[in-house]
This record gives sequence, structure tokens and C-alpha cells, in this order.
Amino acid sequence: MASESELIAVLTEVFQSPATMPSSLILGIGDDGAILDLRHQKSVAVADMAVENVHFRRAWSSLAEIGGKVTAANLADIYAMGGEPTFLLITAGLPADFTTEQMRELARGIQQEADLVGAIVVGGDLTRSETIVISISAFGEVDIPVLRSGASVGDRVIISAMPGWAAAGLALYQKNLGESSGIGELIARAKSAHRKPVVNYLQARTLGSVGCTAMCDVSDGLLSEARHIAHSSQVKIVIDTDAFTDNQEYHQLTELGQFCSIDPWEWILAGGEDHCFLATISPTTELPSGFIEIGYVSSGSGISLLHDLDKVRLNRYQSSGFSHFEG
Amino acid sequence: MASESELIAVLTEVFQSPATMPSSLILGIGDDGAILDLRHQKSVAVADMAVENVHFRRAWSSLAEIGGKVTAANLADIYAMGGEPTFLLITAGLPADFTTEQMRELARGIQQEADLVGAIVVGGDLTRSETIVISISAFGEVDIPVLRSGASVGDRVIISAMPGWAAAGLALYQKNLGESSGIGELIARAKSAHRKPVVNYLQARTLGSVGCTAMCDVSDGLLSEARHIAHSSQVKIVIDTDAFTDNQEYHQLTELGQFCSIDPWEWILAGGEDHCFLATISPTTELPSGFIEIGYVSSGSGISLLHDLDKVRLNRYQSSGFSHFEG
Repeated sequence: MASESELIAVLTEVFQSPATMPSSLILGIGDDGAILDLRHQKSVAVADMAVENVHFRRAWSSLAEIGGKVTAANLADIYAMGGEPTFLLITAGLPADFTTEQMRELARGIQQEADLVGAIVVGGDLTRSETIVISISAFGEVDIPVLRSGASVGDRVIISAMPGWAAAGLALYQKNLGESSGIGELIARAKSAHRKPVVNYLQARTLGSVGCTAMCDVSDGLLSEARHIAHSSQVKIVIDTDAFTDNQEYHQLTELGQFCSIDPWEWILAGGEDHCFLATISPTTELPSGFIEIGYVSSGSGISLLHDLDKVRLNRYQSSGFSHFEG
Repeated sequence: MASESELIAVLTEVFQSPATMPSSLILGIGDDGAILDLRHQKSVAVADMAVENVHFRRAWSSLAEIGGKVTAANLADIYAMGGEPTFLLITAGLPADFTTEQMRELARGIQQEADLVGAIVVGGDLTRSETIVISISAFGEVDIPVLRSGASVGDRVIISAMPGWAAAGLALYQKNLGESSGIGELIARAKSAHRKPVVNYLQARTLGSVGCTAMCDVSDGLLSEARHIAHSSQVKIVIDTDAFTDNQEYHQLTELGQFCSIDPWEWILAGGEDHCFLATISPTTELPSGFIEIGYVSSGSGISLLHDLDKVRLNRYQSSGFSHFEG
């Protein structure tokens, strides 16, 4: 059992200021607040909370993965606004028996994900809690914000990766399904995606530079995010499910679905926490490399599917996924 | 039992954008993140988390008080850096049976405290949790940051109010001591201070304008905060306990202490969560109205008491209080 000052010493060590301090960081950890110079650009601010046994289980995920996952959710939100992350504030509720080793592992998971994009932890708050709760606020610089409200009729709908892996991994854990002959690698990949998704932040940067018209990260499921864009842009989003069935990963998720007795479309259309990037681009914009074109924007409202899935299933997937109070 | 979208509808209603939007708020609640224009000043960023049954109990406090209390802790941190709060991000873990009425009450408590200083809720995240967890990040503008490291030998040590009321209130709740003949008003005042301290933010503004050399808000106890200033400024802080015994409120806390069988110095020196402001000012600066001069800065390190309290008690009070990982 570590004292709070011992835990803080670990955080000060892991979250030490970088060797070359950015000129925008005037004062980091150690006072009542951090002092930042954000005068060069507009700022984007986001926040996400993760709760033990809701977002993660310690039986499944390492503390480093838990720290990395909640950090990734925040960083993806910054990129989804067209921004570049700069600073993080971390608050954590930790059990009374939390050790300095555990603190170090959790902090390193946060730091490693933040290092991927050069974001710096500038402060936060530790408190006791029966189960682990982590809340992160992230800030970023943004030149031209990319909002959900910018989609226009005729735009192409694109996504940065096949969604559904994190949801497939969660299902495998929930059903307590371990390695299986033949599809062991797929199982391992899905479980890993649940524990700590690998977010391709560079793809969001690409989207910003090609000039996408709207963007979301897929934290709550593809249909849920598409609905957000449709609602904010006052358009209809049409998803062509054939775009997925052409993809090799669709067949991999289908294999996993058969193994779990779960319809893989539930993962693809309603699975959250992959944090891939859903965007709309103008019809004249070239499809950026690595992206999948999955539909188009039409007049109307809401979302619809072109093929394959009946209305009952669509309604089910639309209502699943957990929405957030985002801002 | 309210659905998440119903809870979010309440938040959107309570946290609606102000009638006159500040030019620094480009986009509030509703997208992946808020877009802020912080280009006119330096920024200060703080975060605080409050956990049910650690920081508050629903049997004692209303949801409005709970929301107001964690907001106050964040706003006080901004003022303690010499800043003016502008924007808040709220994350909350809420039980599955949380109703829209409860959501409204919690949100209104946050909004009311934020309204005291004109701060605006610009986003956040809601999630499920077995018990209530609230984390707030607050941002502010700051012209000249007031750090803990600015105290100099010869400075006067001042505090904006008598600390200890919130700790006295907590003790009364913990001992299940209700209204008593004779001191009912004192009991009510202390209990109220625990549930939702009344923070005099104007006093912090005054401190900034008279040019204090260092400042903290008393969130973790007077001695703990004084030790922070001493450590950061590489000086010794000497507290004159006679400064408190002259104060009428000392006698009131002593009455409550007798009623509870608790040494009131424990509340005054180590009681947290009052969020009054502890500061140092140069010897030539006039004592601002409403402040109590409680000691001076000398060469050396750490803290010491001039009178009244033996070393055993001092050591006990120094080690109590709960420190935070602040930034």
C-alpha cells in the first residue's frame, strides 16, 4: 500500500517535463494549476472518463493498456476536431491498496500513448476510489476546426479503418473464449483491440490536410457517429455495406462472429472504442490512401443502409452503442 | 431510470450557451470537442475529481451541493493561480438508476457555482459507474500567474478567512451530531461548509490586484498548503497561532470542538476543503481588507508554529490532510 505522496512521486517521475519544453508550456505539474500559452492558435478541449468494470476490467487489461486506452480516446477526439493534441490533465480515483508499481504502469501507459503525438501531461488530481476511475482532459491546437456539421449532399463518406475489432474483442472476453486452433491470431488481434486500440492518428491528420467536410472518431459505433454527422449537418448519410464485404477484415470479423455466435455486423455498425475516423469529403476530393469509402451524403435526415441488412437489425444497431455527453 | 440521451438532454438544457457568447467560445457542447480562442491571454488549466463516499455522501449532501462543491474546488484552483475562470469540462460517472431530475439537480449545482464567476461548461463525458464520480477541468485566463514559488524572506503570510469550518462540518456528520441547543447555528454553518463551501472568489481577485508574491487555495489543510509554498519558494513559513485565537470564529470552532470532543486546531491547521486563499505579500503591501495576517516568511525550510501547539500535535496535523497530484 503506497502513500499518496509515494504515488505522486511516481507520477512526477513518469510525467517529467520533456527535455525541450515547448514555448507554450509555461508551468507544468506542481502548483494549483498549469500555465499555458495558447495564443498562437485556436484551442480544442475534450474530456473522457473510463470506469473500472464499465470500460475495462483489470482481469483482462494491464494497467498500461487501461491508461493507454483512455488517453487514446481523448487524443482521437482532438484529431476528430482537426486539431493536434498538446496538453493533458489527468484525474484518477484509485483504490487504497494501489501500489507505486501499479501507479508507474498506469502512468507509463498514459505517457506512451501521449508520446505518440507529442502531448504533455501538465497536471491533474489523485483521489481514493473503490474502483479505478480515470478522467482525462486533452487540449490541442487547431487551425481550421473540422465539425460534424460540415457534410454536404453529394459528399463521399469514408472511414480510416474497418471498425468492429474492439467490440469483437470485448465479446470474446465476455464469452470467456480463449485461443482457438486456426483463428488464434484473429482472436488475439480482437482482444488486443479491446484492451488498447491502435489508433492511426496520422490518418486523421491526413483527413485534415485533404480538407474533409466533417469528421468524428468512432467511439460509440459507426451508425451512432454517422447519425451525429447527419443530424448536425442536416443531411442523410447512406452507408453502403458492400464496401465492407469487399474488405479482407470483414471476412476475419465474420470468422470471429461465427466462433462467438454473434452477427459481425453488430460489431461493424455498432461497436465502439475503435477510434477510427469517420469523415465526409467532397466528391472532387481524392480518396486518401488507406481509407475505405463506405457511402455518400444525400438530402434528408438520419442514416440508412444500402444493402444486406434488414430494418430490424438496423434499428437494433442504432439503439446500441453508448452515447456520450461530448463537447 | 433515465436513458443516457435523456440525461444529455437535461445537460444541454442546464448548460445552454449564455445569451451573449464570449468571443473566445467558438464552439461549445455538441461535437467531439469544444473550440476555444485563448489567444488573448495566457491560460491556466486545473482538474479535480470527487468520488462518492470519499468526498461526499448523498445522505448528507444534495446533488446540487455536490456539483457546486467540486466546481468550487476547480474555480478556487484557477483563482489561486491568479487567473479568472472561463471554461469547464465535466466528466461524470453515474449509477444506472440516475434520473433526469437528479441529473438536473447535479448540473444546476455546477452551473450555479460557475455562474458566480461567469465560467461556461463547454463539454464533457457521461458514463456509468456504481457510485457517483465527478471530474472537472477548468480553464482560465491569466495575465500574471501567481505561483507557489514566489514567497520571499520577510513577506507576510495572510489568509482570506478562518479555515476549519468544512472539516468541523465533516466531523459533525461523521459523529452523527445533529442540532444542539445553544450552538445550533454554529452546527448548521459547519455542516453547510462541508456540503458546499462558500468561496469568496473576489478575495482571490483582490490578492492578484494587490500583487501577492505566492498563493494557494486551502484544499488540503493550512499547514499542508503552507508547506507547499515553503517548499516551492525555498523558505520557511512561520505561523502565529495567536492570529487565530483573536478571531471570533476561533471561539466558535472551539465551541464546536468541545461539543465533538475534537481539538479545533486539527480543523484550523489540517482541515481541507474550505478553499479559502493562503498567500504571501511583501512587507510593504497593505493587508487587504477581510484578510487575517497569520505569520511571516523567514529563511530556512518547512513550516513552524510560533505559539500554543506542541510539536506532537504539529506533526500530527502536518501528516494529515490529503495531498493531491496538482498541476
